[in-house]
Amino acid sequence: MKQAKRTASISELIVRKREGAQLTEDDIRGLISGFMDGTVADYQMSAFAMAVYFQGLDFDETVAMTLAMRDSGKVVDLDSIQIPKVDKHSTGGVGDKVSICLAPIAAACGVAVPMMSGRGLGHTGGTLDKLEAIPGFRVDLSIPEFRAQIRKLGCALIGQTDALAPADKRLYALRDVTGTVESIPLITSSILSKKLAEGIDALVLDVKVGRGAFMRTQSAARELARSLVRVGRLAGKRVSAVLTDMNSPIGYTVGNALETAEALEILHGGGPDDLRDLTYALVAEMLRMAGISRTETDAMRRIHQVVADGTALERMRRIVEAQGGDPAFVDEPSELPLARHRSTIAAPIEGYITGIDPLELGHASMGLGAGRLRAEDSVDPGAGIRLHAQIGDRVSSGDQLATLYASRKDLLTSGVERIAGSFRIGKRRPRKRSRIIETIRR
Amino acid sequence: MKQAKRTASISELIVRKREGAQLTEDDIRGLISGFMDGTVADYQMSAFAMAVYFQGLDFDETVAMTLAMRDSGKVVDLDSIQIPKVDKHSTGGVGDKVSICLAPIAAACGVAVPMMSGRGLGHTGGTLDKLEAIPGFRVDLSIPEFRAQIRKLGCALIGQTDALAPADKRLYALRDVTGTVESIPLITSSILSKKLAEGIDALVLDVKVGRGAFMRTQSAARELARSLVRVGRLAGKRVSAVLTDMNSPIGYTVGNALETAEALEILHGGGPDDLRDLTYALVAEMLRMAGISRTETDAMRRIHQVVADGTALERMRRIVEAQGGDPAFVDEPSELPLARHRSTIAAPIEGYITGIDPLELGHASMGLGAGRLRAEDSVDPGAGIRLHAQIGDRVSSGDQLATLYASRKDLLTSGVERIAGSFRIGKRRPRKRSRIIETIRR
Repeated sequence: MKQAKRTASISELIVRKREGAQLTEDDIRGLISGFMDGTVADYQMSAFAMAVYFQGLDFDETVAMTLAMRDSGKVVDLDSIQIPKVDKHSTGGVGDKVSICLAPIAAACGVAVPMMSGRGLGHTGGTLDKLEAIPGFRVDLSIPEFRAQIRKLGCALIGQTDALAPADKRLYALRDVTGTVESIPLITSSILSKKLAEGIDALVLDVKVGRGAFMRTQSAARELARSLVRVGRLAGKRVSAVLTDMNSPIGYTVGNALETAEALEILHGGGPDDLRDLTYALVAEMLRMAGISRTETDAMRRIHQVVADGTALERMRRIVEAQGGDPAFVDEPSELPLARHRSTIAAPIEGYITGIDPLELGHASMGLGAGRLRAEDSVDPGAGIRLHAQIGDRVSSGDQLATLYASRKDLLTSGVERIAGSFRIGKRRPRKRSRIIETIRR
Repeated sequence: MKQAKRTASISELIVRKREGAQLTEDDIRGLISGFMDGTVADYQMSAFAMAVYFQGLDFDETVAMTLAMRDSGKVVDLDSIQIPKVDKHSTGGVGDKVSICLAPIAAACGVAVPMMSGRGLGHTGGTLDKLEAIPGFRVDLSIPEFRAQIRKLGCALIGQTDALAPADKRLYALRDVTGTVESIPLITSSILSKKLAEGIDALVLDVKVGRGAFMRTQSAARELARSLVRVGRLAGKRVSAVLTDMNSPIGYTVGNALETAEALEILHGGGPDDLRDLTYALVAEMLRMAGISRTETDAMRRIHQVVADGTALERMRRIVEAQGGDPAFVDEPSELPLARHRSTIAAPIEGYITGIDPLELGHASMGLGAGRLRAEDSVDPGAGIRLHAQIGDRVSSGDQLATLYASRKDLLTSGVERIAGSFRIGKRRPRKRSRIIETIRR
C-alpha cells in the first residue's frame, strides 16, 4: 500500500476516501481528469461520490475538487474589464426572481455583473426561463459578445455554457441518479467550479433555507454557506453568503412572465416588500465585495439612488435591447403576455394567512406548464400563479387568494386543489419575519 | 416519499439505503433484476454497494440479496440424488489444497459432494488450477455429466459455470474496481448465492483468518462466519463455519502440482499434520451436517477408517479417471510434473522458525508463474515453492528452507529475495498453534 500511494489506482483512491483518509490535490486532479477522459468509469465516480457522502472532503480537498472541475473546461477571461466583477448565485427557491432586478441595480451602482444562470427544474424556476418571457430576449450570447456587453453595460445575463466546468455537469448528472446529491463538499464544488469559470472577482451567495429550498434547516444551510465562503476564499475569490428564508414563495408570483414582470416592478420603485428587501440586501453585499461601499448604509444609499433616479431601469432597458428583447416590456411589465386560461381560488374561511407552502406552489406551477419535470421539457412563459394575499394578510371567506394561468384548460383543474391546499389560514396574525436570516463572510 | 415506496426509483432506493433504512425483498429483487436487464446502471449499483458498505444490510436484506442473485441464473437440480449433498467453501488462503483431499474422503464416508471451485487470483490459489496439474483432468463437465458423476461416485469437482448466479459475477467484478469488496453482507451474499445455486443441502465454510486471508482479524472473520451461517440457514440450508488460522501457509507447498501432490499424500495416510487436521475437521463437520455422524468422535472414526483402508484413495482414483485425468498420479503423487528450473534458499542464521509470511509467499509463488495477477492470465502447473521447514522447526545456518520451481530461470531470481524475507527465525521455540480456531454453528 505504501508504494502504491503515489500512483494510486482509482479503486485504491476510492478505498482511501472510504476509510476517511485525506486525498492529495494530485489525487483529486487525477480523478477529475480521468473522469473526463474516460479512464475513471462512471461506476467508480459514483462509488467515490457515495464515499464522500459518508466521509466528507475537508476544505483543502474541496478546493482541489472545485479547481479541478473549473479547469475541466474553458475559464472566461474578463481581465480586460477593469471594474470589479461580482456575480450572485442562489441555491434555488420558489418565486425567486431576484437576479432580474439585482443585476441592473448592481450594474448601475458600478459593479460588473457577468451573470450566468440556469434553467428551472422540478419545483424551482430558472432565471433563463424567466428572462425569455420577454419577447425576443436571447440568453445564448457567445463569450466575446458576453464580454463586450459587460464592458459596455456592466452586465450581461446569459446561460451557463457547456464549455464551462463540463466535469461538474457530468458529475452532477451522475449524482442526480445515484443518491449522492446531498453532500456539502460536492454541492460546494459544483456551485463554485461553475462560478469560478466565469472570470469573477467576487461572489455573493443566496443560500435559501426552508420548505421550498434544497436546505431545509438553518444548520444545514449555515454549514453549506460556511463551506462555500471558506472554499471560495481558499480558491482566491472574495465570497460571502446570505442565508435567506424560503418557507413561503418570494413576492406574489410564481411562473416566468409573472415573475419577470414583478422583478421589473422593483426597478420602477414598486413591487413586493420582501423581494425588494432581499434584492437590496444582496446588492449591498455585492457593493461591499466590490469595494464600492464600505458600509451597509452607504450601499443602501447608492441602491435607493439608482432605483429612484431611474438609472437601474434605464440600464435594464439597454441590457434587454442589447440581448434582442423588446425594451417596451421593461417600461410596461404588466404587458408581458400571460397564458389565456385562468381560474381563481377563494379563501374557504376567514382569518389570517399563516402559511403558503412554497414546495406545493412550485410543483403546482410546474403542473400548469411553467416548469420542467425533465431537463429536456420546454416551459410555457405565460403560465403560473399570482397570489392576491401573502402571509400575515387578513382574508374573508370568499376573498380571492390566487389566480392560476395556463395555456390549456385541463391544466388549470389539476392545479386548483394543490394550490388551495398550500394556504394555511388561522385565527392569529403570524409574526412578521424578515427574509434575511444571517450574512456569513467567513 | 410514502407513496413512492412501492415503486421506488433506483435513486430513491439508493438514498433509502444511504439513510440506513431497511429495504424490502421486492426492492432488492427489483434491484438485482434491474442490474441484470440493464435498467439499473453499473454506476447506480456501485453507489448502492458503497451505501451498503457504510450502512450494512440486515439478515433479512442479505437473504433477499442472496436469493435474488441465486435466481439470476440456473439453479442446479440435484433432487434425484437421495444422499445428503454437502459442499465446502474456503474464503481463500495460501497453500490451501484442502478441497482435493476433503472431497474424496467425504464422498467415501457417504456424503454427496457437488463441488464447484474457482481459479486462483492474486496471492490465493484456486482448486481448479491445482486439479488441472493432474495431466488430462477436465473441470468443465456439463451439468448432466456433473449430476451423473455425483450419482455414481458421490463427488464431482468442477468449475463454477457462468450460468450460475451471473448477477454475483457481475456485481463482484464491479465491487472489485469500486472499493466495495470489504462488506460483510455483500461478501455473504456473494458466497452463498453461488453455493445455493449448486443444489446443495448443506454447506461447511472454512473462514480463514490472518495475514494470508481476506479477513485479517478474528473478530472480522467471526462476524463474516456468523453472517454466512445465519443467512444460509434463513435461506433454508444447513450451514456451519470453521474459523481457521491463515498466518502461515498450509502444509509445505504453494503452487499447483506441488499442492495437489501434497493433498494426495493425505489420502495415502501421509502428508503434513496441519493439512490433515484441517481436512479432517472440515469433513467431520460435513458428516454432522449430512446427519451421518452425530458426534465428532464418530465422524473422526469414519474418516480415519476410509483413509486407513484405502477407500478414500480409491474414490479419488475413480474421480480422476472419470474426469479424464491419469489415475497413476493419484497412486504416485510425487510423479506430477514440476517446473524445470529450481533454486534453494538457506537459513541465514540458526534458530527456530517463528513465522512464514503467507502473503509474501503467495505473491512470490504468483511471481514464479503459479498464479494470476489478472483473471485472463494462464498459470504454470509446475511452478511454486516447497518448504523444507515449518513454524517451530529448529534450523542451523545453511540449512535449506525452501526450493523454488519455475519454467523460466529469470523468474527464479526475482522470487528468491521475497521468499527469503518471508521467513522469521528466532531464539525461542514458538508455541504450537492449531489451525482450528472455532466452529460456528449458529
